[in-house]
Amino acid sequence: MNVRILVRLKPGVLDPQGRAVHHALEGLGFDSVEDVRIGRMIDMDVADGTSDEALTTMCEKLLANMVIEDFTIEKLDSEKEPA
Amino acid sequence: MNVRILVRLKPGVLDPQGRAVHHALEGLGFDSVEDVRIGRMIDMDVADGTSDEALTTMCEKLLANMVIEDFTIEKLDSEKEPA
Repeated sequence: MNVRILVRLKPGVLDPQGRAVHHALEGLGFDSVEDVRIGRMIDMDVADGTSDEALTTMCEKLLANMVIEDFTIEKLDSEKEPA
Repeated sequence: MNVRILVRLKPGVLDPQGRAVHHALEGLGFDSVEDVRIGRMIDMDVADGTSDEALTTMCEKLLANMVIEDFTIEKLDSEKEPA
């Protein structure tokens, strides 16, 4: 099972990396960009029986810093394998 | 317009960060994890008229290292605003 975990800074937490990228995009002439926030994507292959609780625990214990970050778990059901 | 850009290492490129996370998850007792790859997520607010070409150029020029990374552009049409 393919799982994508997205970790992003909570709203209100300063994102210097995003601000730097925003500034750099403006420097390159991309004036249509209004805001940039940068987060992490964690692509995992996990055994099919893995529970949502286990995935949540992984995020809370290791993958995200719950003080300043939120996470989203997206299950990418392998559409290539119909059976 | 909200745009999410996902930047990931190309297949075959070594991902030491992903390997370290995989190892750490195993150390915490999560044996169901088979593979971990880590990438970046860039959430951007851009003006509504921004073209796909402009977004692609942003990725190629700044957001992704095309030698070792691939990128995906996902337009998250703001579902909260019906009109």
